[in-house]
Amino acid sequence: VIREMPIAKAYASTPQARRSPTSPADVARIFTKSPLFEGLQPISGSTVVTVDRRRALYGQATRADAVLLVASGRARLIKTAPDRTTTMAYRGPGELTGEESLFSDSYDCEARALDRLEAVRIPVEQFRARLDKDAVLAGRLLRLVQERRASAERRFEAAFTRSVEARVAAFLVEAAVRWGIKHELGTLVGVKLTHLEIASYVGSTRETVTVILGELKRRHLIETGHRRIIVRDREALLRLSV
Amino acid sequence: VIREMPIAKAYASTPQARRSPTSPADVARIFTKSPLFEGLQPISGSTVVTVDRRRALYGQATRADAVLLVASGRARLIKTAPDRTTTMAYRGPGELTGEESLFSDSYDCEARALDRLEAVRIPVEQFRARLDKDAVLAGRLLRLVQERRASAERRFEAAFTRSVEARVAAFLVEAAVRWGIKHELGTLVGVKLTHLEIASYVGSTRETVTVILGELKRRHLIETGHRRIIVRDREALLRLSV
Repeated sequence: VIREMPIAKAYASTPQARRSPTSPADVARIFTKSPLFEGLQPISGSTVVTVDRRRALYGQATRADAVLLVASGRARLIKTAPDRTTTMAYRGPGELTGEESLFSDSYDCEARALDRLEAVRIPVEQFRARLDKDAVLAGRLLRLVQERRASAERRFEAAFTRSVEARVAAFLVEAAVRWGIKHELGTLVGVKLTHLEIASYVGSTRETVTVILGELKRRHLIETGHRRIIVRDREALLRLSV
Repeated sequence: VIREMPIAKAYASTPQARRSPTSPADVARIFTKSPLFEGLQPISGSTVVTVDRRRALYGQATRADAVLLVASGRARLIKTAPDRTTTMAYRGPGELTGEESLFSDSYDCEARALDRLEAVRIPVEQFRARLDKDAVLAGRLLRLVQERRASAERRFEAAFTRSVEARVAAFLVEAAVRWGIKHELGTLVGVKLTHLEIASYVGSTRETVTVILGELKRRHLIETGHRRIIVRDREALLRLSV
């Protein structure tokens, strides 16, 4: 049986990140591995935090005082409305999250750990001070925010003009890029995904996603089993997605 | 009868901006009036262009070699899919558009003039060179792109979780902010809007938008007539929109 955390509980969830005992060397190592900071100095005042699986790195609408840089594990960014949950994005190792704190007093959504997650917590004042004097970092961050904006624009345009099948196909192509592992049948999406989780990303219901995945499997575009998906025919999915 | 330009024609439309004879003083005056450039020097190499009503300032997927700064008139940003058109945003005096050219070789959508439009055309190389050495401009642009991203994220979340009525209500509240003129009944939206145009913004059909506007009028939340809308009860619309 596929289950998400009940919405009432998600609402109640507050950040549950713990500070880890860390050395400046640990912090520096994590900064170095992120494309955003490649070749740049770590931002001072940063610390390492860890959160357990299913716990929140930060909560929706809670006070935003830090930008997070994921070191290991994955986070799902979730916006909760009274009757429905939307998956806004996924973040993995080397990726920045919670960067809205640079502009806003509160986080737009919750970052929930899908695995045990380790991240660098960068205080927002130090991040801002660094941006003012580091044109390289500012330029890279601008590009990152623009990419995330373009992705959001593609998603609302797809919500308006594409079928749920097309949006599921687009999700599977992206999932194969993000988590893909080579497999004899094609590309194994290397994480467990519930049908409800996919539905919360494409803006549909669990039932509809189940029907669509069944149809894609029947047509040999994917293989499924044990909450795992193998993308067998990426080109066909890409054609379906537009 | 409410009509948009037929999709086939929109597809065929190519940029139709003409260079105007302009002095550096004209360009400087337009830069000065934009919040983004307030207190900053104009970017060299910029020229003034004009486009007539219903013509394209730039076309979707055409070569992106300039960022545009609107001086007067309005543009509607449109993404055209084979069977449907989506209004991505509106841009008016003082606003930047086509800034995706800083990161990409082609424009994401078409900018169509709703009135005769005047804009400053800023060559992308000069804009990039300026960003590298102007931390104030870079910071303001980062904030602008982040705001546009947050707006896009709100729209896809709304597409997934809110009713069409809620999205129409949100559109009307925004339209009153953007184009509002004080009126004895409330706030007059000071531009003509077709039901099809509203539908292309909220992701619905003309028929559904017509029914919803009729219902909002019956409940005295708005007044309509001659393609004009008066927002009578902003608070009630705001409550409907969430």
